[in-house]
Amino acid sequence: MNLEDAKRLDAADPLHPLRELFTLPEGVTYLDGNSLGALPKATPERVRRAVEQEWGEGLIRSWNSAGWIDLPRRLGDRLAPWLGARPGEVLVADSTSVNLYKVLHAALQLQQGQRRVIVSERSNFPTDNYIAQSVARAHGGELVLAERPEDIPPLLDERCAVLMLTHVNYRTGRMHDMGLLTRWAHQAGALAVWDLAHSAGVVPIDLLGSAADFAIGCGYKYLNGGPGAPAFVWMHPRHEGQVWQPLTGWLGHASPFDFDSEYQPAPGIQQYQCGTPPVLAMTALDTALDVFDVVQKLGGIKALRNKSLALTEAFIGAVEEQVPGAVIATPREAALRGSQVSFALPRQVDGYAVMQALIARGVIGDFRAGDPELLRFGFAPLYSGYADVVTAVDALADIVTTGSWNAPEFTNRSKVT
Amino acid sequence: MNLEDAKRLDAADPLHPLRELFTLPEGVTYLDGNSLGALPKATPERVRRAVEQEWGEGLIRSWNSAGWIDLPRRLGDRLAPWLGARPGEVLVADSTSVNLYKVLHAALQLQQGQRRVIVSERSNFPTDNYIAQSVARAHGGELVLAERPEDIPPLLDERCAVLMLTHVNYRTGRMHDMGLLTRWAHQAGALAVWDLAHSAGVVPIDLLGSAADFAIGCGYKYLNGGPGAPAFVWMHPRHEGQVWQPLTGWLGHASPFDFDSEYQPAPGIQQYQCGTPPVLAMTALDTALDVFDVVQKLGGIKALRNKSLALTEAFIGAVEEQVPGAVIATPREAALRGSQVSFALPRQVDGYAVMQALIARGVIGDFRAGDPELLRFGFAPLYSGYADVVTAVDALADIVTTGSWNAPEFTNRSKVT
Repeated sequence: MNLEDAKRLDAADPLHPLRELFTLPEGVTYLDGNSLGALPKATPERVRRAVEQEWGEGLIRSWNSAGWIDLPRRLGDRLAPWLGARPGEVLVADSTSVNLYKVLHAALQLQQGQRRVIVSERSNFPTDNYIAQSVARAHGGELVLAERPEDIPPLLDERCAVLMLTHVNYRTGRMHDMGLLTRWAHQAGALAVWDLAHSAGVVPIDLLGSAADFAIGCGYKYLNGGPGAPAFVWMHPRHEGQVWQPLTGWLGHASPFDFDSEYQPAPGIQQYQCGTPPVLAMTALDTALDVFDVVQKLGGIKALRNKSLALTEAFIGAVEEQVPGAVIATPREAALRGSQVSFALPRQVDGYAVMQALIARGVIGDFRAGDPELLRFGFAPLYSGYADVVTAVDALADIVTTGSWNAPEFTNRSKVT
Repeated sequence: MNLEDAKRLDAADPLHPLRELFTLPEGVTYLDGNSLGALPKATPERVRRAVEQEWGEGLIRSWNSAGWIDLPRRLGDRLAPWLGARPGEVLVADSTSVNLYKVLHAALQLQQGQRRVIVSERSNFPTDNYIAQSVARAHGGELVLAERPEDIPPLLDERCAVLMLTHVNYRTGRMHDMGLLTRWAHQAGALAVWDLAHSAGVVPIDLLGSAADFAIGCGYKYLNGGPGAPAFVWMHPRHEGQVWQPLTGWLGHASPFDFDSEYQPAPGIQQYQCGTPPVLAMTALDTALDVFDVVQKLGGIKALRNKSLALTEAFIGAVEEQVPGAVIATPREAALRGSQVSFALPRQVDGYAVMQALIARGVIGDFRAGDPELLRFGFAPLYSGYADVVTAVDALADIVTTGSWNAPEFTNRSKVT
């Protein structure tokens, strides 16, 4: 496939017009939407209105008149269908880490001290494992990590309280079978907590169908809510009224405006709200969700998923064909991968420097240290296309083949992230 | 004092030009900056730039190139002098409730299980007491509440682990003596945690001079960071390396970008960061702090405090003179009050309806239920003036004297907040 072929494929793609709903800088091929989603074109004006009119003119009155107080529930309701959940079950609040802390405490409390082990993977995103260590220790238990996905089932024993997994692995792009692993966890007497950071908005998710117990996820990756956007939290309705979470802020109270002395948790998901919602950030996420209303009319998550798989498949094929020595770390089987492709380069090629050289040419992906060191490319089917695949792989092949990555401005690892 | 007198006083006030740094809606007298600060004029353009340029154009690169990753520490450094703290000791992150949760856990952990009681006031803002109940219970202790300020000292006994107080009470505007109460707490073997929600940016605060242990506070009241702005957290440097807090997210790790399996807390205040910072909200708060750079040139917090006291004194005097039956709930003694005035009306006058009638006339204050029901008026010396005092009290006196509050559109208590 050359660039002309790719442009023809893009032109024929019924989802291609969605790209027009985003601002993408001239000369940039953006393949890092798995880290930070692109800016929806409608966001600046909507945020300006929230700042100048709702805050500047409405002032304190906007908690009612502009519906600020309802944002956490309203955004949750909008997200629900993309998670396989129902309105009223999802809340947008705080960060992914803070929400994970809440649901892990809730899950361990449901186990009533009978089981205290949290099982996860060593390759999980670090914040998940750090939070799990803290929560497990608070309950007198521990976090036990599987080295490989196939090591998970034997860890689901009579000590296991919670199986906590990220649906799509941030390094490899490998996707777990949520239904199967949840069933295994339940058969072993454990609960299942899912981190949807790398799947919400890009792969089909069926929380209710999977009978999962809790889920949390991120607003600024495939959902395009902006840098550090608020996160979301879901609890299966069967746990309603049965659980408690420790971040007992006033807006999780059953009657927050009664200003009671004693904390009484609100029923259902509202209990997971803690402090005052970050209105400007919520407004950006709210606007980003408008894009998904358009997706719904163009075939919904299935159409998005088909395009995502076609893009990652084309990318895997092109990398293998054009980039000498590249070893794909992402599963080739469609059902086993999310929407990113990661690969390693031969030891003598500095993957970090290759990524810097790519970025210098306007192709933005992501590099992750570790063993192996991985180059990661996220495909956001809302705005990524076949031309991006060709542009990226052509540049990559040239950089690796010519050795142009081996220059001091690329090899100096002084960057923060 | 009539409106002409007031305007003369405003014109002569060296801080009056600060008002020009804020957008205030035409025809509105805003006396609720203690709930939500007004919009700084520079904020819309700065937020637009963060959205369109940093996010839209810079995308993921802005974590480094726009300094996003440094925002929590950089904003903390900017806030530090207004709290009587040094740069490097303050972090901006999460919400007030979440930060309180972190520091209360840290404080109880410092007590090593020897003491498990948190002492506070029943009239503290509910979220503080709810969070304290949760943390105390997690450590096998309890929250004990003083009914009146004078009941606090006897509660500082050998069971008391932590004295947790809000510096300026949200209902009455009464201010505690931070130095004295911290000393008493320490003499009793307890630690002192201060909530600065209603004092940061408006009254002199000396955390280091008071030898307080921990402090937290809100970014959207007198600091004008916008609705739901991120909060701040401070820890006395003597506790550095001694403590642990349970929200062990990746950005509180000693080396967050090494992606270690084991959590190792960062030294000092950085440990209190949890998830990814909310960049848009942080940008708004950053811009709001520019106003305080100007204040520094006009006499700093002392000048702000003198103006605040003059405004609240004028307001108390005018209310007593003009509003029949008003009973001031805020201390008359300057050293005992923050920057708001609260008062109760006779039982036959519906305070809620009076506030609605005031708002209908463009005078925005706040109403709080309870016994007594209180009308609250916050004076933000950055943008409130003597003319606001006169306009507010004239309207108030008219509404109460004529009974015009007693109309269905005012008496119907259906509003959310």
